[in-house]
Amino acid sequence: MGVSRWQPDARERLEHAALELFLEQGFAATTVPQITARAGLTTRTFFRHFADKREVLFDGDEIPAYAARLMQAAPASLDPMTLIVRGLRTVAESRFEGRVEELRVRRDIIRSDAGLRERDLRKRAALAEAIRQGFRQRSLDDRTATLAAEISVSVLHIALEQWLDQTGDRPLFDIVLATLQDLQDLMTVLTATQRRSAAQQPLDV
Amino acid sequence: MGVSRWQPDARERLEHAALELFLEQGFAATTVPQITARAGLTTRTFFRHFADKREVLFDGDEIPAYAARLMQAAPASLDPMTLIVRGLRTVAESRFEGRVEELRVRRDIIRSDAGLRERDLRKRAALAEAIRQGFRQRSLDDRTATLAAEISVSVLHIALEQWLDQTGDRPLFDIVLATLQDLQDLMTVLTATQRRSAAQQPLDV
Repeated sequence: MGVSRWQPDARERLEHAALELFLEQGFAATTVPQITARAGLTTRTFFRHFADKREVLFDGDEIPAYAARLMQAAPASLDPMTLIVRGLRTVAESRFEGRVEELRVRRDIIRSDAGLRERDLRKRAALAEAIRQGFRQRSLDDRTATLAAEISVSVLHIALEQWLDQTGDRPLFDIVLATLQDLQDLMTVLTATQRRSAAQQPLDV
Repeated sequence: MGVSRWQPDARERLEHAALELFLEQGFAATTVPQITARAGLTTRTFFRHFADKREVLFDGDEIPAYAARLMQAAPASLDPMTLIVRGLRTVAESRFEGRVEELRVRRDIIRSDAGLRERDLRKRAALAEAIRQGFRQRSLDDRTATLAAEISVSVLHIALEQWLDQTGDRPLFDIVLATLQDLQDLMTVLTATQRRSAAQQPLDV
């Protein structure tokens, strides 16, 4: 048994067992001992990999740190939109592509529980904050940095939803590009002057 | 005393007392009886107006419903961006303008407490969801509706932050228009073809 402490797939086995149990009996009803029993591992091993059962669903939590590293390593000369496009491609292909079935299961479980949905919102906010800081370090002013960060996260999440909903096998980054195009179309319907004049008539109820 | 049950300013007095106490002694340390004692009202009156002390800080919770009503009442012919611009002006002027001091206090208190920051994220998500549904009812496809909703909320929140941070007295809606302009600039730096070609080189760390 000496080798089992070091088995490289412990984390994956725990994840797999946890997802199975969350689906079978619900997230709230599942305990850590049940997960470890199903995985054939000890609770001690579980807590070496995850702070609690909720964290099993959020292994994507390293994404903010990953995005920060990508931005730091990118050439200083890149304009913000080129950086966004390249960053989204990198994240889509290295973190999501090829995992569609598993990500659908995770999404279903997260949707089933209010606490998990909140955790998901915090995760989104943490990613936006990491990207905002990355842009601030590249000397973008605060407003543009925040905007660039928020649209990056929105576009990624909107594309992810559509990618998980599809019955075909369109690549995630393809949907990311289409979403960026939608955003560009939306933003160019009106010129600045037209926006100012549109604003002359507020809405009423 | 008969008239006091109906005093129209009970809600405002409770809000004022609560904000004072949150500032003086912190959000966590403040109790509902302390708030009602300071306001000279009963706890029963408090709970007629607020579910708990947290809700005192989130009286803006009717904003999703208000946004939904605005969208339903707007002419069907409006394009999404005109609707966004008019809606943002209406919300900025009817719900925020003129309240800068009080909103700064609320923001400071919300920032001081993790639970309140989470509640604030949920509030943002609820507003985005209301706007998304409003656009779906106007027959926008799901992706564009979600995008239009998310940028509305992002632009409003980014402009609100800058408006609360300023030392001058620039109107909120002015900053909203400038933020929309930033977003348009960001989205038009690259054409669709340039985005595709930018994506040919993913990032690396």
